[in-house]
Amino acid sequence: MNITIIGLGLIGGSIAAALKQQQPAVTLTAYDKKLAALKYAKQKTLIDHYTNNIGTAISKAEIIIIAVPIHAYTTVLREIGKYITTAQIITDVGSVKNTTIAIARRELKNNIAQFVPGHPIAGSEKAGIANAQSDLFMQRQVILTPTAKTNPRAITKITNLWQSLEATVTIMPPNKHDKILAATSHLPHVISYAYQNIFTRRKNITKYAANSFKDMTRIAKSNPKIWADIFLANSKAVLTEIKKFKQQLVLLETSIHNLNNQKLEKLL
Amino acid sequence: MNITIIGLGLIGGSIAAALKQQQPAVTLTAYDKKLAALKYAKQKTLIDHYTNNIGTAISKAEIIIIAVPIHAYTTVLREIGKYITTAQIITDVGSVKNTTIAIARRELKNNIAQFVPGHPIAGSEKAGIANAQSDLFMQRQVILTPTAKTNPRAITKITNLWQSLEATVTIMPPNKHDKILAATSHLPHVISYAYQNIFTRRKNITKYAANSFKDMTRIAKSNPKIWADIFLANSKAVLTEIKKFKQQLVLLETSIHNLNNQKLEKLL
Repeated sequence: MNITIIGLGLIGGSIAAALKQQQPAVTLTAYDKKLAALKYAKQKTLIDHYTNNIGTAISKAEIIIIAVPIHAYTTVLREIGKYITTAQIITDVGSVKNTTIAIARRELKNNIAQFVPGHPIAGSEKAGIANAQSDLFMQRQVILTPTAKTNPRAITKITNLWQSLEATVTIMPPNKHDKILAATSHLPHVISYAYQNIFTRRKNITKYAANSFKDMTRIAKSNPKIWADIFLANSKAVLTEIKKFKQQLVLLETSIHNLNNQKLEKLL
Repeated sequence: MNITIIGLGLIGGSIAAALKQQQPAVTLTAYDKKLAALKYAKQKTLIDHYTNNIGTAISKAEIIIIAVPIHAYTTVLREIGKYITTAQIITDVGSVKNTTIAIARRELKNNIAQFVPGHPIAGSEKAGIANAQSDLFMQRQVILTPTAKTNPRAITKITNLWQSLEATVTIMPPNKHDKILAATSHLPHVISYAYQNIFTRRKNITKYAANSFKDMTRIAKSNPKIWADIFLANSKAVLTEIKKFKQQLVLLETSIHNLNNQKLEKLL
């Protein structure tokens, strides 16, 4: 089987590493804007072939995996749309689904049934192929969000692909995915960035910090461009969750302000 | 040397374990309200003697270490105040210093010069002696916050004690300590509890959570009574930090609401 990965960052690179380990018979081709990432992957034998032309990259692929940041979707899917044939299946790993599905619909047009929207719930604050891990998806959830138009056989193929990497596949509507992830992943990132920003002019005091500080700031080391994309692509659900969080924060704040031990303990 | 530990929870227990490892010549006596904690520590040879009477516990001690929750300070210090002699040194491990110093001043009266207020910046969401670790303070900061009245020789003795457990000792005013810890430790706990509370009626969705969720909720598993105490004992500084955090949160919220990618990226 031929699989092509478009975008060799942390996720694309980890898929390559995992496939090479779990499915050594697969022939892997990769495309990335950065030649250095492609050369690195080839040298580490994470991929078999690489090219800086998307048309060439996908020409023999049975499955095309899109693993680029949200802001690159339009460019990448437009190129794929030019060359795609009806026998090929496309999937992605984007952290938001409504927005990415809308782009895919616009760019793939009549081939949209071949697109299986996906999102592995795995990652790290460390970006780039140099941090790729072959076990990144093991015992992790992968959510697929097919639409009414998605070809059922394509869904099965992508399900099998993720299961071969030891991930657990769940299928749900894109809307549900975006609401859940706004609460469980996007909001924690908003909070972590906001918390980190209170130290902008007093970094010196963070030397007295322990584990609670480390946990609270780890994900604020994530790539700002990638996360600005995600927050804006899922803005409605993210704003809803920020509102809920602020309400809970104000409840705690009020109890502390009123020195109301009983109420405070109950909230904790 | 005889050392007495008042309160055998995670911190008191870890001090016992660390002392037994680093200073085996020390004779350790412990007091705790809970007989089970004392018996456990004795059985694990973390302490040499135990008693449920504070007067007896401290009678031979050169150094008395108070490791009880904030709400127990008055009771414990009143008992110590009854039996303390001028040759003995007292220290504590409380997470807030202004409030605990005020209690010590009230209860120890003329013996206040013998009290060296302290706070090891180490801990865990896991409470209790069963989670004690002999390496909890290694390569960690311990902040001492003596007042103008504190006996310099007492400060030196407590500094040496912590250094023997491989901790780094820093001395600063209690006010400064409370402001720094409000930002680096107390606020993260407030945030974690507030974040956790948005899932109260939808725990089912947390199964799709990854590391960002785990990091954001870990410290909300801490003991509610202990943390309600801390938030209230340091309420002014904690409220100041909550306000700063809310300002940063609103900046992010506004950029997301306005779909202002440039501003958002800058904030991240």
